[in-house]
Amino acid sequence: MKQSTSLKVRLPTLVVGVEVVMLFLYAGFVTYDDDADAKMQNNETKPMDNSLYHDYHFFADVQVMIFVGFGCLLAFLRLYGFSGMVFNFLTATFAIQWAILVQGYFQFFSDGKIRLGVINLLNAEFACAVVLISFGAVLGKTSPVQLLVMALLEVPVFSVTEWAVLKYIKINDAGGSILIHLFACYFGLAVTFVLFRPGLNEGHAKDMTSYQSDILSLMGTLFLWVFWPSFNSALTLKGDDQHRAVLHTFIGLSSSTLTAFALSAMLNKTGKLTLADIQNVTLAGGVTVGATVDMMISPAAAFALGVMGCTACMLGYRYLTPFLARRLRIQDQCGIHNLHGLTGLISSLAGICAILLATEETYGPSLYQTFAYRAPPEGDPRLRELQRLIPGLKPGLGRSAQRQAVFQVAAIFCTVCLAALGGIVTGFVLKLPFLASPSDEWCYDDEAFFEVPSDFDSADMPKVLSNQETKV
Amino acid sequence: MKQSTSLKVRLPTLVVGVEVVMLFLYAGFVTYDDDADAKMQNNETKPMDNSLYHDYHFFADVQVMIFVGFGCLLAFLRLYGFSGMVFNFLTATFAIQWAILVQGYFQFFSDGKIRLGVINLLNAEFACAVVLISFGAVLGKTSPVQLLVMALLEVPVFSVTEWAVLKYIKINDAGGSILIHLFACYFGLAVTFVLFRPGLNEGHAKDMTSYQSDILSLMGTLFLWVFWPSFNSALTLKGDDQHRAVLHTFIGLSSSTLTAFALSAMLNKTGKLTLADIQNVTLAGGVTVGATVDMMISPAAAFALGVMGCTACMLGYRYLTPFLARRLRIQDQCGIHNLHGLTGLISSLAGICAILLATEETYGPSLYQTFAYRAPPEGDPRLRELQRLIPGLKPGLGRSAQRQAVFQVAAIFCTVCLAALGGIVTGFVLKLPFLASPSDEWCYDDEAFFEVPSDFDSADMPKVLSNQETKV
Amino acid sequence: MKQSTSLKVRLPTLVVGVEVVMLFLYAGFVTYDDDADAKMQNNETKPMDNSLYHDYHFFADVQVMIFVGFGCLLAFLRLYGFSGMVFNFLTATFAIQWAILVQGYFQFFSDGKIRLGVINLLNAEFACAVVLISFGAVLGKTSPVQLLVMALLEVPVFSVTEWAVLKYIKINDAGGSILIHLFACYFGLAVTFVLFRPGLNEGHAKDMTSYQSDILSLMGTLFLWVFWPSFNSALTLKGDDQHRAVLHTFIGLSSSTLTAFALSAMLNKTGKLTLADIQNVTLAGGVTVGATVDMMISPAAAFALGVMGCTACMLGYRYLTPFLARRLRIQDQCGIHNLHGLTGLISSLAGICAILLATEETYGPSLYQTFAYRAPPEGDPRLRELQRLIPGLKPGLGRSAQRQAVFQVAAIFCTVCLAALGGIVTGFVLKLPFLASPSDEWCYDDEAFFEVPSDFDSADMPKVLSNQETKV
Repeated sequence: MKQSTSLKVRLPTLVVGVEVVMLFLYAGFVTYDDDADAKMQNNETKPMDNSLYHDYHFFADVQVMIFVGFGCLLAFLRLYGFSGMVFNFLTATFAIQWAILVQGYFQFFSDGKIRLGVINLLNAEFACAVVLISFGAVLGKTSPVQLLVMALLEVPVFSVTEWAVLKYIKINDAGGSILIHLFACYFGLAVTFVLFRPGLNEGHAKDMTSYQSDILSLMGTLFLWVFWPSFNSALTLKGDDQHRAVLHTFIGLSSSTLTAFALSAMLNKTGKLTLADIQNVTLAGGVTVGATVDMMISPAAAFALGVMGCTACMLGYRYLTPFLARRLRIQDQCGIHNLHGLTGLISSLAGICAILLATEETYGPSLYQTFAYRAPPEGDPRLRELQRLIPGLKPGLGRSAQRQAVFQVAAIFCTVCLAALGGIVTGFVLKLPFLASPSDEWCYDDEAFFEVPSDFDSADMPKVLSNQETKV
Repeated sequence: MKQSTSLKVRLPTLVVGVEVVMLFLYAGFVTYDDDADAKMQNNETKPMDNSLYHDYHFFADVQVMIFVGFGCLLAFLRLYGFSGMVFNFLTATFAIQWAILVQGYFQFFSDGKIRLGVINLLNAEFACAVVLISFGAVLGKTSPVQLLVMALLEVPVFSVTEWAVLKYIKINDAGGSILIHLFACYFGLAVTFVLFRPGLNEGHAKDMTSYQSDILSLMGTLFLWVFWPSFNSALTLKGDDQHRAVLHTFIGLSSSTLTAFALSAMLNKTGKLTLADIQNVTLAGGVTVGATVDMMISPAAAFALGVMGCTACMLGYRYLTPFLARRLRIQDQCGIHNLHGLTGLISSLAGICAILLATEETYGPSLYQTFAYRAPPEGDPRLRELQRLIPGLKPGLGRSAQRQAVFQVAAIFCTVCLAALGGIVTGFVLKLPFLASPSDEWCYDDEAFFEVPSDFDSADMPKVLSNQETKV
Repeated sequence: MKQSTSLKVRLPTLVVGVEVVMLFLYAGFVTYDDDADAKMQNNETKPMDNSLYHDYHFFADVQVMIFVGFGCLLAFLRLYGFSGMVFNFLTATFAIQWAILVQGYFQFFSDGKIRLGVINLLNAEFACAVVLISFGAVLGKTSPVQLLVMALLEVPVFSVTEWAVLKYIKINDAGGSILIHLFACYFGLAVTFVLFRPGLNEGHAKDMTSYQSDILSLMGTLFLWVFWPSFNSALTLKGDDQHRAVLHTFIGLSSSTLTAFALSAMLNKTGKLTLADIQNVTLAGGVTVGATVDMMISPAAAFALGVMGCTACMLGYRYLTPFLARRLRIQDQCGIHNLHGLTGLISSLAGICAILLATEETYGPSLYQTFAYRAPPEGDPRLRELQRLIPGLKPGLGRSAQRQAVFQVAAIFCTVCLAALGGIVTGFVLKLPFLASPSDEWCYDDEAFFEVPSDFDSADMPKVLSNQETKV
């Protein structure tokens, strides 16, 4: 049984194969963008105006979230700490490298070349976040080979969706509630639906935490919490938009954190706190403010969104996740539907409300920057008038708020459908026989894929596990 | 006995109650400041000049200190790691949210509204640091409900003190040695004095570390150490003042770290290093340079302050903390009197010396910026002269250095008194019966407030603890 | 036997002695640089143009790498976690403090004073990185007293080398592949060669990891990985050069990470992943792009360098390290020859190739900035012509690419020789009898130098270790 998880041939074959192709693609198509190209600098270039200095520190914050934050958060299982952190590392690295190419083709392509700057890396980290969220649904039940294949397929589906929604539908979604969280959630759920393992529905002896793994996971939460404002604001317009994004994210996280503590104690039989709630539900506010994060929604609205998102997320963990597993065959290991799906939906609705309520009275003329599609189209006399107030204003589509609400709904619908469809196809690919998928028995066990040190306690699990716990 | 620590009703009641009030206050009184308000942007606004870019990355560094650094540092107890990290998370989040309102009312209020920007968050994190330092005195002996009540009371007392000292007394205290460290220390000591538990004075079986908890706590120290320059410089004047603050903090920390190693080996019977010293005493230099951090004290003075602060702190841990516990009924769990009190006092004295020694010869005309109260008052002809050298110079109070020294002393006195008074009142409030305070037996034990995983070893403690240790 | 490792007298004597001398040197010779000196500010100073804002956040990132990243990475041994993190902390702090003086004397000296700014701290952290890399060779086998003595000697040798190479030979080495990694590697190897312990060549019962220590070490890797772009770009020219440095480092790391996974599975007998590979070999790409990090080498070349460096590093761990230990008496505990030596050599060669291939066609006139020595010398009419294109261009040495290649080779040669020589001398000094060197038996054991908590499991090691492992 265990033989089948050997990575000796499969992983090197896949990685080397993909890396060789990737190297050729990088050699053939990737070059520097203007801010990274020595030749584009002239005697009027001011080095400190380089886009590097606008983006790099936000990028570095997101790096910490992706590699350290996610890595630790996913290491919450007692016997799956190596796997949680390491597969996160592997998958993230691969997804970013691949997303640079795919997103580059759709978004940063000119004259036959992908133009590379830190902004591309930042965009690619968002694509990577999508993959890692989806990974949460199948954690413990997939081999690294399967995860790489999943990333290989998910990144293009995501990039096409992103490109179609941003270029053709044109929506507001600065914090990525729709494009990142909803997409990632429904993609992941679709994958885990296809990979359904009946043997795990009654719980698994190794699906449990330890004192140290819980603390490690909590550290991951804290890193995500601390840098979430950078995540939600990294791709907004610079200036007041980005400033609001930071404020709203912080306030949303903070109200959702306090609510999570209250609900965790309230819903527990003996009135104790459940660490899994602190690790996950506290973050709900960061997702829930996403779609409106750069708008003038008022600090109180961000506060209220945090409370709502958190409540939905908590109830989801308690009641929906078990229901999905038992009735709909959707085994959502980390509960991504609660932390990213429900909150993403609330955020999307809030976004629509905020769009409908946005007026020039509140935003001044910069309404037409934050909601760029509402700017008058080329040739409209109103455009010239506005350009006197905001010199760089670009012509838009002249959409009304009501019309835009319809587009937002369309975008949500498209995103969820494409994600689910992509996830189902990916799930079937992951069922192919040679991908080192672990048997039920070897799920949630580092020993399947790692040389483990002598104090690794997989052996005496069955004894210890008389009072078996399953993570809700 | 254990029943009494159930949070099922108490925590949700308190949190939901407070959150509802808070939401109304946010809705009624909190709006955006000019840099976060879309309407205030016009065709002369340069997005990259937004205050966000001056403050945000310092804010992010302080976030890491508050949530990760403090969180890990306070998780040094073997059976109290969940509580250390999680109560820190809870208390910090609540304190910041509350401080935004209270400090907002005192410092950022205009036209009936609190104007919110990242600078408010940064200020609120400092108020939060105050609460967390005080928390150190009562760690292990208080319920989360008590901690929230403490934050609820401490934040306003602190904010009033801060406002009175900064607005009326007007002092130099860029790194917060007086307002943050001294206040937090004496508030915390007063609280723990009132909460005195005779049963703990002979040590407690669970008041001990483990190998992993010691390492975790050390990681917290390292995060605090690494970002302390950001903490001490976050609220100074921009430019050379902030630059010096970074340099002095780094040098002070570095000399105090080396001194701590020397003293730790020297004072140990067998010539070994004590990890608690490395975790705590190394940080003394960061506090000790606080009050003078932006002044032209010379790098060597920062070096000497680090050595002095460290020595005082170390001796305090060895001799003063046990004395306070036995004779004065002050059970200072983390030794905050050593790390924040003694060092804060040294820093305050150093501040007075540096003020007395500050001359125009050393500072040039920017003397009247760093020591704003020394600038000539409105109408003084000398003011116009200086304004030719420094166009934006604001009129001051025309205080002499000697006169200012008196004000510094007054500020120290007021701060310590208000802190102690506030702490005593708070302590009595925390003794109210329905706050889920743990019995002596359940102190230092995660199981009082958390669902713990099956490998949590509280049960076999008594056996293991034949050679019982108490943290000094 | 154990007596001899007491630090009671030795450590305080050394530290206090050195600190007193240091304090006098700081007092006598260290003052502020122009950007940190209040007196140098005038009515034309714009505070936000202060160099602090160009350098500080890169400095903070490198701080995290040095103190948290290295600290955790070096804590990979089961019974040597305290020592790994704490000795790293001690050595790093001391090395930086000392390097500020030594590098200050060579690089930042004017009018009899060392001018101190954040840029000096940044440079000193690089000198510190050198010491910490060398530390990797002797980890587990040296006392803290020995480590301080090593830092005391290595910093000046490094600083002289750095000064001679940068000032007289003048080379390209933005990421420090030559000056930092090669120097550190050969210095460390020379030290460990002299300190050869025959008793350890057959492995040591305590030279093993635990589940938690492996995870901690992996966290260190992740912090290093995440901030490596800051490390490699911190000292480049601002603007597009720094931008490219970030891009190349990220790409190099990412391709080396994926390659490391492939090779780790491939070279393992049972097709499992080895955590030590993930902890170390993934980072090879960061070193390998070092010497060319700011050049127009193309993203694909950074990709290829990552793959090559990783492959060399991995093969080194498998075959070269055991060979060095057995045949050449070089016991390289952490395998620094693989991660810093082999990769450094590849990087150096790549640097030479990139220099030979650099043309004005690719770089435009900024060729003469990135390769400053190629700028025409003072008086050359071509210089005036170029200065019309790049107003601030400084006169250079008019070297051709070919000629520069020779200088690069000379620099590599000098660096390696000085490092080896310095390392040998240092090794003999470290053999002096009163430096608390642990006996073979007490190697890799925290108990030699630390008070350990009651759950420290050194005692039952021999039993556990029937299936003894040695770290390759």
